[in-house]
Amino acid sequence: MAKQNKMPSGADIRKRNSNRRYYTYRKASRKSFPVPVKEAEKVKISFLGGMNEIGKNMTLYEYKDDMFIVDCGLAFPTPDLLGVDLVIPDFTHILNNADKIRGIIITHGHEDHIGGLAYLLKKINIPVYATRLTIGLIKGKLDEHGLLGSVKLVEINPRDNITLGSFNIELIHVNHSIPDSVGLAIRCPAGVIIQTGDFKIDTTPVDGDMIDLPRFAEFGKRGVLALLSDSTNAERPGTTMSESAVGESFELLFRKAKKKRIIVATFASNIHRVQQIIDVAVSRGRKVAVVGRSLENLVSVGKELGYLNIPEGILLPIENIKNYPDENLLLITTGSQGEPMSALTKMAMNEHRMVHITPNDYVIISATPIPGNEKMVSNVVNALMKQGVDVIYENMYDVHVSGHACQQDLKLMIGMVKPKYFIPVHGEQKHLVKHAQLAESMNIPIDNIFIGEIGNCIELSEDGIKKLGDVPSGEVYVDGYGVGDVGNIVLGDRKILSRDGIIIVVAAIDAESGYVVSGPDIVSRGFVFVKENEELMQKSRELAGSVIEASYDSRYRDWNSVKTRMRDELSRYLFERTKRRPMILPIFLEV
Amino acid sequence: MAKQNKMPSGADIRKRNSNRRYYTYRKASRKSFPVPVKEAEKVKISFLGGMNEIGKNMTLYEYKDDMFIVDCGLAFPTPDLLGVDLVIPDFTHILNNADKIRGIIITHGHEDHIGGLAYLLKKINIPVYATRLTIGLIKGKLDEHGLLGSVKLVEINPRDNITLGSFNIELIHVNHSIPDSVGLAIRCPAGVIIQTGDFKIDTTPVDGDMIDLPRFAEFGKRGVLALLSDSTNAERPGTTMSESAVGESFELLFRKAKKKRIIVATFASNIHRVQQIIDVAVSRGRKVAVVGRSLENLVSVGKELGYLNIPEGILLPIENIKNYPDENLLLITTGSQGEPMSALTKMAMNEHRMVHITPNDYVIISATPIPGNEKMVSNVVNALMKQGVDVIYENMYDVHVSGHACQQDLKLMIGMVKPKYFIPVHGEQKHLVKHAQLAESMNIPIDNIFIGEIGNCIELSEDGIKKLGDVPSGEVYVDGYGVGDVGNIVLGDRKILSRDGIIIVVAAIDAESGYVVSGPDIVSRGFVFVKENEELMQKSRELAGSVIEASYDSRYRDWNSVKTRMRDELSRYLFERTKRRPMILPIFLEV
Repeated sequence: MAKQNKMPSGADIRKRNSNRRYYTYRKASRKSFPVPVKEAEKVKISFLGGMNEIGKNMTLYEYKDDMFIVDCGLAFPTPDLLGVDLVIPDFTHILNNADKIRGIIITHGHEDHIGGLAYLLKKINIPVYATRLTIGLIKGKLDEHGLLGSVKLVEINPRDNITLGSFNIELIHVNHSIPDSVGLAIRCPAGVIIQTGDFKIDTTPVDGDMIDLPRFAEFGKRGVLALLSDSTNAERPGTTMSESAVGESFELLFRKAKKKRIIVATFASNIHRVQQIIDVAVSRGRKVAVVGRSLENLVSVGKELGYLNIPEGILLPIENIKNYPDENLLLITTGSQGEPMSALTKMAMNEHRMVHITPNDYVIISATPIPGNEKMVSNVVNALMKQGVDVIYENMYDVHVSGHACQQDLKLMIGMVKPKYFIPVHGEQKHLVKHAQLAESMNIPIDNIFIGEIGNCIELSEDGIKKLGDVPSGEVYVDGYGVGDVGNIVLGDRKILSRDGIIIVVAAIDAESGYVVSGPDIVSRGFVFVKENEELMQKSRELAGSVIEASYDSRYRDWNSVKTRMRDELSRYLFERTKRRPMILPIFLEV
Repeated sequence: MAKQNKMPSGADIRKRNSNRRYYTYRKASRKSFPVPVKEAEKVKISFLGGMNEIGKNMTLYEYKDDMFIVDCGLAFPTPDLLGVDLVIPDFTHILNNADKIRGIIITHGHEDHIGGLAYLLKKINIPVYATRLTIGLIKGKLDEHGLLGSVKLVEINPRDNITLGSFNIELIHVNHSIPDSVGLAIRCPAGVIIQTGDFKIDTTPVDGDMIDLPRFAEFGKRGVLALLSDSTNAERPGTTMSESAVGESFELLFRKAKKKRIIVATFASNIHRVQQIIDVAVSRGRKVAVVGRSLENLVSVGKELGYLNIPEGILLPIENIKNYPDENLLLITTGSQGEPMSALTKMAMNEHRMVHITPNDYVIISATPIPGNEKMVSNVVNALMKQGVDVIYENMYDVHVSGHACQQDLKLMIGMVKPKYFIPVHGEQKHLVKHAQLAESMNIPIDNIFIGEIGNCIELSEDGIKKLGDVPSGEVYVDGYGVGDVGNIVLGDRKILSRDGIIIVVAAIDAESGYVVSGPDIVSRGFVFVKENEELMQKSRELAGSVIEASYDSRYRDWNSVKTRMRDELSRYLFERTKRRPMILPIFLEV
């Protein structure tokens, strides 16, 4: 881990002034002689994920010899990561400092905050601190990975404190789209740092438990060194609607559904949403069946831990729905993002084993498409509509509200916490920049605002923010059981294969004479429909043969250069004829 | 082409009544005895594209022995069509009726209306009718395909008539995001059918030429049998903003840009947008350079045909921009959809050969992401922002307006044309359904509204709409020079290859004895990083060897069944070890 004291260059300052970019440097610049005044205490923060991306949040705090981690999430692969199942942060920096890590605190139970945890704990066994529901969800993950029992899980409540070396961390209750979410007040000799976690301000939450704004205000009053705040909705003006608004929409829509069967798709982790759906279903005399594995998990954990309140006899196993008329049924299902393998998508495509869609269904998609999923959601809506189903989606009614604070709420948080330094987190660059602009509009000086990137390490003290050298960081791809074994070479090959397929040229060569004794044969996959292109394949075979024969004459025959020539010549020929560039793979067997 | 008179079944009627689905049947049902009254004249419409999709619009009209086509567009491939460049309609039905086709009319010059034309004209040489600019753009396409000169292109003006067999078609000027767009009034003995083409109602268009509503109204007054209307924006309430509003935003933003270089990204076909950008640039003393091949084409065609009015000395070749200060420059560029190979994306990623982004750039994305492109646009915005660039995007200002009519405008069109039958076209199911609901709200009876699918053929007369048997239809994939040679087998292979790669097992077998004389060797691509998985590859090789050896004992050895066993065993082994399912391809060479 290379550290360097980076002073702002003239260019940096010019850049900052002319473009109002957020860039921070240490105000009291290096003195050229030693002074006897006591230096301010310093705390370091490294960003291992969640900066310039939505997903795989992970932040590392460091004071002298003590470190602890906040969150360890996963990200879902972008479309170019062919075949990759999920993406987790690079843990190198953590492992390099294993002896200093005192534990990890998880702010809430969403995948982008807990999804990488099992992979981390396989490498380093550290205690995990979280609230009750979050611990419940983590247990499920650890169980899948065979880690349950070997990891210390510590359940804590909001307003409780955890001491991790020189750090003392208090959990502060916040509202979000999953219960038991918390922000953190991190105390160390350098000062107090507030990290909000994902949050919204809900004055009428379903469980009646509003975000603990008074506690944020108390810290603000006593003085906060830095605020790290959720930027997800920084582009949206106004305030975020209360989750309760969705319940009111359900009342209206369930009435409109009349005697039809109701199917509501929602995020599998939104317990309050599920509670509201069930409440309205019960009030209208409907039984409820839950469809989709992740939702079934949630309902079982939620019931067990007391987060879901379901009257006896309401829940039906899915195989029993056939015993009830449509008007007495409500299905809660996964697939609100149009995910291809989800329950709702299977229903829409007539591929679900248990649920068969008819025009007597009334479908409500209680979610907004996550950027990138718009088209998949549309496909599901269209497929359902083709079957004559009424579909309520997107902004037709208030059937979804966000779990993240909008601009007005974000400003409220900044105004209550009154931090010296402001660091927008959890967002793409456009969200971070917008959040920074909000902070600036509240008179936080530009030099006190830091927009970071993954790998950045900063040092905070009363004297200023200093950017240190980057720490090892990045993304690790998980594909099946493989963690990190799929890299650029494999992905590059998959990309070529996906576009134009592969041509394999096989020949058996006499080891002594060097002459071909069988082949060359040509086999292709994903290139052209072979039956309709026999001439093309025949010509390719002849061309491959002539490349080998031409090598007979050369004095020093080198099979690698024969292969290279074969690739070049076949590639050129096939591109001329088809305008495609398949992977060309010559294999020679010596016999 | 199998035709059948389909009468509504009891189920159909129930479905219609209970779900208010739009389904139409012939009112005067089959008489059981012959009656001497004259039957009403009938006209047929077949939908070969553009129904339940945005893209590849193509409609076929038929009266007795005369047929003509409206539009021949392309669609861009969905992400599952790996390696496919574009999608065109299936022309089988056209080719089966080649002797009846009198010509094709193109409503405007967008790809989803002209992009399939060259492929059609290669199969069947028919005259093409369109307005001036549209002909200009078609010429460019035909030139690329070496068809220029061999095809009859007929330039016509709005309010002009074309006679195609028994049809007489009048072109009606409409507003859209490309000049010279027209709707059609199609006259034949069965009545008048209005097809709007893509349209909006712009009361203050940039060229001053408002949609010819009076002409639509005249037809409405005299009686219209059917209206086929653009459904793209049927989900959006209100009216569509005028293109002129964008010019006003440019005025404001160009002032805000102060002394920075301005870069505006927009659709390559929107001549009026380009004109407005140039007008404001000129008024603010900036020179203009055009970046991106499709935009360069448009500007050259637009200038040549007089659709673009650019003062002398304003346009700069891109290589000359280095001679001017930022404050005197404006670049118009492609890439408003974040397309990976576009000019703006290359600039954002620091990969553009001629344009280097600095914090002194001011970028305006004058477009809205087409559904499915949201993430790509975000990536470009984020990449630019990381370089300190000011980026104006999405709904921050009115820098884009739609080219399609919103609900209020759609209702105006229905109200003026007053058709007996209403057929929403150009849209996904959700758009068609919404558009049908608008028509219903204007008292068009449900039975007079038809929501179709690609391949549907309907017969219209004063007596009613009758659905005939479907005609051959579908999508044909273009991949490089190949048209239709990539089908489900090739795509299926590409999908497997893209996810988990390929394992090739090669062995040379003695033709006489059946014993392996060389190999088996294992080669993999896109599966795992081989260097870190030598053991896995070694074990796979041993397993493959043992499968072959096991076959030595069998009395009747069948190489195909050996290959099948090898695929099964290797597949099982590799899935157990890696949870991946690569394609497994055994190749045996006889020597």
